[in-house]
Amino acid sequence: MRSFMSPKYASLEAYTPGEQPQDMQYVKLNTNESPFPPSPEVLSAVAEEAGKLNLYCDPECKALRAELAALYGLKPENILPVNGSDEALYLAFAAFADKDTPVAYPNISYGFYPVYADVHHLPSHVIELKEDFSIDYRDYCGLNEMVVIANPNAPTGMTLSLWEIEEIIKSNPDNVVLIDEAYVDFGAESCVDLIRKYDNLLVCQTFSKSRSMAGARLGVALASEGIIRDMNTLKYSINPYNVNRMSQRAGIAAVQSNDYYMANCRTIAENRAYTVEKLTELGFTVLPSKANFIFVTSDAISGGEYYEKLKAMGVLVRHFTKPTIANFCRITIGTRAQMDVLLEKTKQILAEKGC
Amino acid sequence: MRSFMSPKYASLEAYTPGEQPQDMQYVKLNTNESPFPPSPEVLSAVAEEAGKLNLYCDPECKALRAELAALYGLKPENILPVNGSDEALYLAFAAFADKDTPVAYPNISYGFYPVYADVHHLPSHVIELKEDFSIDYRDYCGLNEMVVIANPNAPTGMTLSLWEIEEIIKSNPDNVVLIDEAYVDFGAESCVDLIRKYDNLLVCQTFSKSRSMAGARLGVALASEGIIRDMNTLKYSINPYNVNRMSQRAGIAAVQSNDYYMANCRTIAENRAYTVEKLTELGFTVLPSKANFIFVTSDAISGGEYYEKLKAMGVLVRHFTKPTIANFCRITIGTRAQMDVLLEKTKQILAEKGC
Repeated sequence: MRSFMSPKYASLEAYTPGEQPQDMQYVKLNTNESPFPPSPEVLSAVAEEAGKLNLYCDPECKALRAELAALYGLKPENILPVNGSDEALYLAFAAFADKDTPVAYPNISYGFYPVYADVHHLPSHVIELKEDFSIDYRDYCGLNEMVVIANPNAPTGMTLSLWEIEEIIKSNPDNVVLIDEAYVDFGAESCVDLIRKYDNLLVCQTFSKSRSMAGARLGVALASEGIIRDMNTLKYSINPYNVNRMSQRAGIAAVQSNDYYMANCRTIAENRAYTVEKLTELGFTVLPSKANFIFVTSDAISGGEYYEKLKAMGVLVRHFTKPTIANFCRITIGTRAQMDVLLEKTKQILAEKGC
Repeated sequence: MRSFMSPKYASLEAYTPGEQPQDMQYVKLNTNESPFPPSPEVLSAVAEEAGKLNLYCDPECKALRAELAALYGLKPENILPVNGSDEALYLAFAAFADKDTPVAYPNISYGFYPVYADVHHLPSHVIELKEDFSIDYRDYCGLNEMVVIANPNAPTGMTLSLWEIEEIIKSNPDNVVLIDEAYVDFGAESCVDLIRKYDNLLVCQTFSKSRSMAGARLGVALASEGIIRDMNTLKYSINPYNVNRMSQRAGIAAVQSNDYYMANCRTIAENRAYTVEKLTELGFTVLPSKANFIFVTSDAISGGEYYEKLKAMGVLVRHFTKPTIANFCRITIGTRAQMDVLLEKTKQILAEKGC
């Protein structure tokens, strides 16, 4: 099989998404999806919009941006809807870092950051987490580099506080500080309000997790007008109609039924507290999470074995092979019933090991 | 307003999509959309799929690729679904050209080709059309460069024959030859069957035009396994979940109702013949088009004035300001009723000018 690939991508290692096996029905706790369906408003909006699919979507996403502006207390000029927040990250890495401007991010975080650095040929400044897996905000102050931090961080679920985020933004005034808030709605503090104060702050959020729209691919970049303008220049040089008609309409309807989604987020937070309590009783160490997932480890079983045994029993969680976290598994928080299955299977696994 | 944009994009000029004005209802003949709604199968598939939006879409698009493989007589490994065919073009320009491998394309063609060359910092080899606006295939033979040709070409609608395309592919064996078949279903000859013979051929098609799905953003790249593998490496480094759940399902349903769409294409071809005949009677010169649009000019009125006057009368067509084609307008072929409105308004405009 011949390759015509440009040598500039010879060493490119693509991102590996969480597995989506089709061989059986799993209790699927591996990709941080919401266990709750979209709101009824979203369902009827999508069905109605399908009749207009022969017409292009609005490349400016005007109606959606107006809704989002009201939701976030920003102007439409501060908002760029994207085809999943991965697209916002891709555009931001392209636009705001380059060979002379490295991009700094934690060594344990969203696995796509090093891939984006790689695909854009950017020097990475990879910063270690502390021993307790937290981020030391001081490591990111005054870097004069583009900074990318997920808050809550993945896969740990741990957070920085608002004043720590602000210190990072303030002390890197000439570079973009990207705060990836994919998981912010499950209990962390958003820094969106700081956008009015700092023109170098870029916040990315997604409708995939808290708004039950992983399959619709809708993310949003929130920032100063200057940052959004530059990201738009790239968007219009790559894929102007990036967010399709159905996802735009679904997004509008989701904002309009925000109460439904925020109630679901509270349920997830309750189920998280419940799961943490039960797993702790079973001897697991669970990092303090504000996300819709928890990162767990046990002396009684390795991360890899726990993952494999759960999978064989029909429960899918995510295991990362990176040495420092290989003894952990990341478990998405689903419904109470799903978490009870996880806990039941975990007890069985531990019993079989004689624990 | 500060900019943090990397200097590497300082001179980037983004693509300008066709206008989507919201001020009034136009007879919209400016962006080559289909005037026909999606098939009933597509509507019900989308409505059903909306209930599963909380789950990620399949990043491998397995079910869709199986349908497409049957449609095109290829293997699933020859197929990459994308978020509109623009995404396939973007990936291909990234993967298969670089600073040492220029990309060759006609000076008058899809306006995105120079933008993609620009955003990827590629040297362009821009080749003039002949005086009659046709492409001379010999200009593209033996170039040892990546070649990109739209067939039918846009905005002319003119085609190369299959043997001319094959000569180009054959004589550039070590480079990718990309044939952009966005408009192929309206009467031109597809070169998809040549994929089994030449591993350097990449064909891009779209569901936006012939399959009434411009608003769903579904394109498809068809090529040898090697080309698709390399494009996948990039896709998984940019946006693995690029085609959302609803568009994947809509695509499957569209393939399954292919007869409906092919009948619509025949209607468009009939309406094209009708419109060409009537405009010719009114003194227009119309380039020989096999697409769902025609490119027209008249000695009686400039392209810019014709566009403006039609717009004021509620008919939207597309006008390009590039000097060599500034006297033309591109008119999408819609329903017979839409074309009658265009013809009626055209007669009025000519009458007002005393022609």
